[in-house]
Amino acid sequence: MDKIKETIEEIGALDGDAMESARARQDTLTKPQRSLGVLEDLSVKIAGITRNHMPEIKDKVIITMGGDHGVADEGVSAYPREVTPQMVYNFLSGGAAINVLARHIGARVVVVDMGVAADIEVKRANANFIDNKIAYGTTNMTKGPAMSYEDAVRSIEAGIEVLGSEKERGMDIVGVGDMGIGNTTPSSAIVAFITGEPVEKVTGRGTGLDGEGLKRKIERIKKALELNKPNREDAIDILAKIGGFEIGGMTGVMLAAASHRIPVVVDGFISGAAALIAYELSPKIRDYLIASHLSVEAGHRAILDHLGIKPLFNLNMRLGEGTGAALGISIVEASCKILREMATFEEAGVSEKE
Amino acid sequence: MDKIKETIEEIGALDGDAMESARARQDTLTKPQRSLGVLEDLSVKIAGITRNHMPEIKDKVIITMGGDHGVADEGVSAYPREVTPQMVYNFLSGGAAINVLARHIGARVVVVDMGVAADIEVKRANANFIDNKIAYGTTNMTKGPAMSYEDAVRSIEAGIEVLGSEKERGMDIVGVGDMGIGNTTPSSAIVAFITGEPVEKVTGRGTGLDGEGLKRKIERIKKALELNKPNREDAIDILAKIGGFEIGGMTGVMLAAASHRIPVVVDGFISGAAALIAYELSPKIRDYLIASHLSVEAGHRAILDHLGIKPLFNLNMRLGEGTGAALGISIVEASCKILREMATFEEAGVSEKE
Repeated sequence: MDKIKETIEEIGALDGDAMESARARQDTLTKPQRSLGVLEDLSVKIAGITRNHMPEIKDKVIITMGGDHGVADEGVSAYPREVTPQMVYNFLSGGAAINVLARHIGARVVVVDMGVAADIEVKRANANFIDNKIAYGTTNMTKGPAMSYEDAVRSIEAGIEVLGSEKERGMDIVGVGDMGIGNTTPSSAIVAFITGEPVEKVTGRGTGLDGEGLKRKIERIKKALELNKPNREDAIDILAKIGGFEIGGMTGVMLAAASHRIPVVVDGFISGAAALIAYELSPKIRDYLIASHLSVEAGHRAILDHLGIKPLFNLNMRLGEGTGAALGISIVEASCKILREMATFEEAGVSEKE
Repeated sequence: MDKIKETIEEIGALDGDAMESARARQDTLTKPQRSLGVLEDLSVKIAGITRNHMPEIKDKVIITMGGDHGVADEGVSAYPREVTPQMVYNFLSGGAAINVLARHIGARVVVVDMGVAADIEVKRANANFIDNKIAYGTTNMTKGPAMSYEDAVRSIEAGIEVLGSEKERGMDIVGVGDMGIGNTTPSSAIVAFITGEPVEKVTGRGTGLDGEGLKRKIERIKKALELNKPNREDAIDILAKIGGFEIGGMTGVMLAAASHRIPVVVDGFISGAAALIAYELSPKIRDYLIASHLSVEAGHRAILDHLGIKPLFNLNMRLGEGTGAALGISIVEASCKILREMATFEEAGVSEKE
């Protein structure tokens, strides 16, 4: 618990001077002022986060956290639970969507087992795999808390540690993604509970539930909320009762990244739920978050509205893993290159506005 | 004129078999079906364009065409006309936004002088500069046609030639952008005339006109339309009377790219106006066009609606040069990598939907 508190205390405000300098530089570059819109705003935000008026994004990292969910026993997912470890192996052999998109943008993927319900056997030491398994999946939240309070703390702390050790390997920006069969169910529960939106509105089809499945999923979420009665004043209690290990891990990554002034690109619905927990723990986190895309998953809009952040794009994606974050990181990198590499009117000998 | 006709005749339909194979492959990749949304659709479209069910985007080219406009004498731009050649030099020395974004995505930029009102002095042979100057800018369309019918034909033919020669250097995809002080004015005129929307609705502030300037711009566009009376049945007449040399050049690039089955990523408002001319010449062109972004410039939406294509993103950009196209190309490339590089359920030993 001390580690979480310390991390939160280290989260500072954006650096207004760096932002002002970055904006001033944007206004001298050879283009009509503000004509690059969000690209300009992003570069200014990154300046504020990094305290550098000409920030550079070189080392890009995507942290994909996996975990299983007891609530999957309730038939709330279109896929069987064994897909979680199977996909972890797919991540490790480079065949998943996140691997492809990470290669595309030149990022490394770090896969973290936060609570997969199977042993992940890594043949040799793999620098891109971290075993932080808290347990073999959460327990079924329709029958009791998903995890103990202590395990909720441990999952966040594990995320903080992952960020810290990965930062040592080089990290100018981090994308956060998830893998876990059934994990839209706890995520919808968290979103409904924290934003106050009706469960029906923030619960979607996940990987492809049919109408019956969706009805069941909504019903189970309501049951879990009624049974567990999370404490609105204690985000860790919310995580413990209706969350997941990978969700807690992502919360920890976000808090720690903010404490180190590293921009965080949030992926979709599950990482968004983790961002809500982080925001409950420390509203300052918001300044460090960049929402990559608007997911198809119902309820993602409620997350972004609650956080007050706008997504960069909407490509009708709903895969998770960090796939949206990867594309978002590339846009952030582009924004910083604009700020750093473009010629000024003076340098290029271009006449200014009349 | 023969060259334009021949090019149009060579534009074929999308390859349905390749698209079907690509879609079938997408459905075997380790992700819930359709969970990558537009990325999946894009890869299928590229398969249809290239007749390859696993297309690869390696050689990326952005063609930025520059031209000046007689109508700039009417005070319809916030910047002086000398900025056009100044920016061409900026492109050639790598300091402009398009250079930065092209480097970011690994594309080469080809700068074409289609009608800049100054001699562009390139010190040594520059493989990335092509001199196709039709004239030192168009004439003032509020006083007569912007160019002769013959010059309109020449500008399109020049674009066709540029695409042909650049294709020889390697080109899997092409982005099309513009530079030309005053060129939102002919573009708005073209958009109003072709789409039938009121001039007021499709005329914006360009690089930053004030309210007075905008009023004047609208008035001058109306005057040009009334005076020149373009022939609704002849797209080349429209280009001649209210267009521009770089607009005609981009039209030619688009037609030629389609004839060679090369996907075309359209930038913003000006290249959109060129796409309208191309679409008038051959509606088949639409299948080959990918709209990168929705520009801030009023009237861009009308273009996309008329063409029936959806933009990939909206980052409040309005710079031109091909900057939106560059970011769009990267997304298209990512979509093809997904299709080619992801493991199938079978390859990865991942269980399918229950």
